Amino acid sequence: MQGIVLFAHGARDPQWAQPFEAIRARVQARRPEYPVVLAFLERMTPSLAEACDQLVARGVTAVTVFPVFMGQGGHLKEDLPRIVEEIRATHPGLPIALQPAAGEDPVIHEAMAGWVLSRFER
Amino acid sequence: MQGIVLFAHGARDPQWAQPFEAIRARVQARRPEYPVVLAFLERMTPSLAEACDQLVARGVTAVTVFPVFMGQGGHLKEDLPRIVEEIRATHPGLPIALQPAAGEDPVIHEAMAGWVLSRFER
Repeated sequence: MQGIVLFAHGARDPQWAQPFEAIRARVQARRPEYPVVLAFLERMTPSLAEACDQLVARGVTAVTVFPVFMGQGGHLKEDLPRIVEEIRATHPGLPIALQPAAGEDPVIHEAMAGWVLSRFER
Repeated sequence: MQGIVLFAHGARDPQWAQPFEAIRARVQARRPEYPVVLAFLERMTPSLAEACDQLVARGVTAVTVFPVFMGQGGHLKEDLPRIVEEIRATHPGLPIALQPAAGEDPVIHEAMAGWVLSRFER
């Protein structure tokens, strides 16, 4: 069974996670057959390693990680690959596919531009 | 003349700004009559104050700020209102409208969910 992880930065304020939970719920509703979970780089739980442990405990045999980040900097270029290598060492039989960041996709640029234009015209 | 500011976090890595520039260019292409600029909270320039100075110098008489942030935490709840108050003190005649964060809008949740689902199914 596949598992999907939406990976976000994390923050002190609990409200910060709400948009990611809203996205998770939408993905889960359209793919009820796969576990869809959140994981965070810092300041929120679960970490990506904890999320993978939990998915494996639920019977997941392959994980796809989606970085819900707009910008690509040190967190995605350095921290995330290091974290994934550590998880691969802990779960050597678990394939972990790493998707490009949300902000790299023109579909997301278009959605954000549409959001600006629709609100600006109100 | 109205001016539009897309406000983002900022990072050390120059590549980090690319998605925001891609969004800016799309908005600008559809509203060539208004200046559309980026501004950053930290580690990148211009700051929001600098961006507003530059817009005023270009003849802008009202600014709308769009926080291109997914999560709402201390940066948007505390830092951004403080920065806007400082700019209002510097430019007392300049109306500055503050939009809700991108991550608060269900349109963005749907776009992000669609991005995950489209890539997961490849």
